[in-house]
Amino acid sequence: MNTTTATTPSLDRRRLLGTSLLLPALGALSFPARALAADTPQGAILRQLEAGREADIARLREWIALPSIAAENRNMPDGAQMMARLAREAGVENVEVVPTDGFPGVFGVMDNGAETTLGLYFMYDVKQFDPAEWSSPPLEGHIIAKPGWGQALVGRGAINQKGPQATLLAGLHAMRRAGIRPPVNLVLVAEGEEEIGSPHFKQLATHPKVLPALKKCAGIFIPACWQGPDGEVSINLGAKGVVELELIASGEAWGRGPVGDIHSSNKASVDSPVWRLVQALQTLVTPDGNTAVIDGWFENVRPLTAREKELIALSAANTDEAKVKAMMGVTHWIDDLPFEAAIARQASQPTVNIEGLVAGYTGPGGKTILPGRAAAKLDLRLVPNQTRAEAERKLRAHLDAHGFPDVEMKVTGGYDPTEVAENARLIRAQKEAYAAMGVKANLFPRLAGSWPGAVFTAPPVSIPATQFGIGHGSGAHAPDEYFVIDSTNPKVAGMSRASLGFVELMYQLARTT
Amino acid sequence: MNTTTATTPSLDRRRLLGTSLLLPALGALSFPARALAADTPQGAILRQLEAGREADIARLREWIALPSIAAENRNMPDGAQMMARLAREAGVENVEVVPTDGFPGVFGVMDNGAETTLGLYFMYDVKQFDPAEWSSPPLEGHIIAKPGWGQALVGRGAINQKGPQATLLAGLHAMRRAGIRPPVNLVLVAEGEEEIGSPHFKQLATHPKVLPALKKCAGIFIPACWQGPDGEVSINLGAKGVVELELIASGEAWGRGPVGDIHSSNKASVDSPVWRLVQALQTLVTPDGNTAVIDGWFENVRPLTAREKELIALSAANTDEAKVKAMMGVTHWIDDLPFEAAIARQASQPTVNIEGLVAGYTGPGGKTILPGRAAAKLDLRLVPNQTRAEAERKLRAHLDAHGFPDVEMKVTGGYDPTEVAENARLIRAQKEAYAAMGVKANLFPRLAGSWPGAVFTAPPVSIPATQFGIGHGSGAHAPDEYFVIDSTNPKVAGMSRASLGFVELMYQLARTT
Repeated sequence: MNTTTATTPSLDRRRLLGTSLLLPALGALSFPARALAADTPQGAILRQLEAGREADIARLREWIALPSIAAENRNMPDGAQMMARLAREAGVENVEVVPTDGFPGVFGVMDNGAETTLGLYFMYDVKQFDPAEWSSPPLEGHIIAKPGWGQALVGRGAINQKGPQATLLAGLHAMRRAGIRPPVNLVLVAEGEEEIGSPHFKQLATHPKVLPALKKCAGIFIPACWQGPDGEVSINLGAKGVVELELIASGEAWGRGPVGDIHSSNKASVDSPVWRLVQALQTLVTPDGNTAVIDGWFENVRPLTAREKELIALSAANTDEAKVKAMMGVTHWIDDLPFEAAIARQASQPTVNIEGLVAGYTGPGGKTILPGRAAAKLDLRLVPNQTRAEAERKLRAHLDAHGFPDVEMKVTGGYDPTEVAENARLIRAQKEAYAAMGVKANLFPRLAGSWPGAVFTAPPVSIPATQFGIGHGSGAHAPDEYFVIDSTNPKVAGMSRASLGFVELMYQLARTT
Repeated sequence: MNTTTATTPSLDRRRLLGTSLLLPALGALSFPARALAADTPQGAILRQLEAGREADIARLREWIALPSIAAENRNMPDGAQMMARLAREAGVENVEVVPTDGFPGVFGVMDNGAETTLGLYFMYDVKQFDPAEWSSPPLEGHIIAKPGWGQALVGRGAINQKGPQATLLAGLHAMRRAGIRPPVNLVLVAEGEEEIGSPHFKQLATHPKVLPALKKCAGIFIPACWQGPDGEVSINLGAKGVVELELIASGEAWGRGPVGDIHSSNKASVDSPVWRLVQALQTLVTPDGNTAVIDGWFENVRPLTAREKELIALSAANTDEAKVKAMMGVTHWIDDLPFEAAIARQASQPTVNIEGLVAGYTGPGGKTILPGRAAAKLDLRLVPNQTRAEAERKLRAHLDAHGFPDVEMKVTGGYDPTEVAENARLIRAQKEAYAAMGVKANLFPRLAGSWPGAVFTAPPVSIPATQFGIGHGSGAHAPDEYFVIDSTNPKVAGMSRASLGFVELMYQLARTT
């Protein structure tokens, strides 16, 4: 669970990133010395990581210098080729660029002759950016000091996702230099469309070459360097789903009001698409804006299990509520709920959130127009057993039934919710790995954020899928996105130790039965 | 009445500009030849105008090259000085820059020894602009072809208001060259804060030097070159008032929800200021968005008089509804009203319009945030006997009473409504002037738009105030704002004839008793 969103002014906006409700009151030092003795593989690999530090940073910089942006069709084939090359150079064999109906994916296997196979989910695309908003050039990877964290590399993709991915690849490089074969086989799938909602990722995952390889995996994870200031991480037993969409009211679709913007004095005789949008919106939620009242919305919402409630209670007891509130800039939970109930909502409740409103004149001051169009950007978080398809269908039906058939619903992306069993090997291995590293890890029913993991957890792939990692970065989607290279916080890993964290998971997974 | 808002893609957004509901089905040629015989003053002045054409264009270009923008504190003292110089050069004596608590005004008197005095309201400020959005540099005044209209000068302020004002000054220059003294005395008041809502204009108008001069005026007008494609104009017996304001919901003011933007997954446990704004907004109007339900809003709304109803019926009968609808991009009036009822609403009903909505992420696609702040930009049009102060007070009280005391109301500008008696000398002179020029003019109860005219019509000034002019331009507040220099439309005046139009009003006013 990501705790960085509230700690930095540059907000993490990535779809994947979750809530900050789970900040342990106490952290612990990473990697006790005994785990890094010279005679352990980890000790040998760490020495190689330290020796290869400059090359690892250079590799990340080179990757950041080539931004692939699906929304802008920018460097897409080149980005896929570079992803493939980076995988090959790290020792992944048989790496292929796999065409889809959208931008290509990348698939590769590293057969280490091991009994166990681990899946890696990468993305080679990044979010759009405006260099004018950055303190240093977003493609140059300058190193700057981040008070409280250490020396950090700044660049688009630094935390989302090139930094964590390059950190994992650095671990593979170090193992090779140390003459140590990874204790698990690896299957890598990488897409270039994550930032536009992964519209063709299922094609990649179910490709005749890819599907059998994925099905061999004990589980798959996305590298996530989301340690909080006390070094804490979460182990999430799934993630909420999401539908991102725009609701658009327009004179054109409505047949009333103006087709374009007209002078506002005409409001006396002409209908307003903006008022239409406001009226449509307010049918979606309770007057406090906190609970969906979309027809049939809760039909398939599964109540929390006893174990989930237990994990929530543990998390609440283990977390400093005041610190969380302060970091989020929040003084009250919904309905003034106590902390445990707020966390329970976070884990269990679907949401209807307005990400953005845009109509007419949005600059400073006013401009006297009657706009011909108004749009609300919504994200609807979904919990088991809701599905994205169900949510889209029900919202459309609700709008139609409530007299707003003209209000256009433009879905821009989305994922189903995911679930992972607590006794899955991948989860047990994560627990062991964090414990071995001395990292405080909270088990939590599900990430309140969302990611394309349902492609893995749902048939036909049907494998556990979640996040894993230590280290720290923040500012995904925002200017000055960064990734900590050298940590000055003893509870948080820098890049080399974060690489070793991924290696540790491989060892623990190999060991777990 | 402005009919240009719907005829050009570059929308007129100026607060002053009104509706397009009154487009006469038939126009007429301007200035019958008999009015321009060589032995009339008008004929002599026109020849001077034609001879001085290049100098008049150069003067307008020079004015446009110095943009004064109050909102940006750009060229404000220089703009006032230039306004004063332009007035002096046109023959206005005793021109003074008059300090106010804001930016300075300009005041001047041209005593022609006449019995009658006419007031001129000018503004030397212009709206902000972004050169990147313009087809030609906004400060250079390039001349381009406007199909259906003629050769037009493009620049910020071209129609709003430097073009019409320079056109009036050109008439004074031509009179002087022709050796003809204007038949009326002139009092000029010019402000530099019109585009920010004229916050200090009353100070100027009631300044001990200015007030006595204004009180001598038979009336005052703002030069308005708003002929439609059939050459039509309106004579408005007043104008609606307006309050422009923002309603802002924020975590900071509410004490609930986030202070800044946070990750949208937190919606499950954190209140949303955006939903709060939506809920507050929908208490302001009927579900169709067409009638204010703000507590006490209609208390002082004066019903239409029998004469006003008569003028509305005449306007409806005299106007091509289909053409108006087509130009506005509208297929239905509110409630599918017949045209006359729609015009009646336009003249008589207060409005609550949303000019703009802005919250959270407003760019392309989505960004999964729970915004800490949401704002709606509203303009509330007011009719007699509502007042701006009353409207502000009642809206605040309504929000408080309906449970939204935290929703901030930030008023950015506004004016009281104005009324001018149909038998006022200025109105009678306008009728005569338009008739003499062969211009079709519709009497209308009031402009559905708004302007600072209440400073003149209300005590202590208490003089008739309205708009007057022929000629054409459009695109106020928008890119590629233009003013027609040479008309290719026989029903519409170019710059020289528009100058003569202002001269004609002086003669007609002098003649009217």
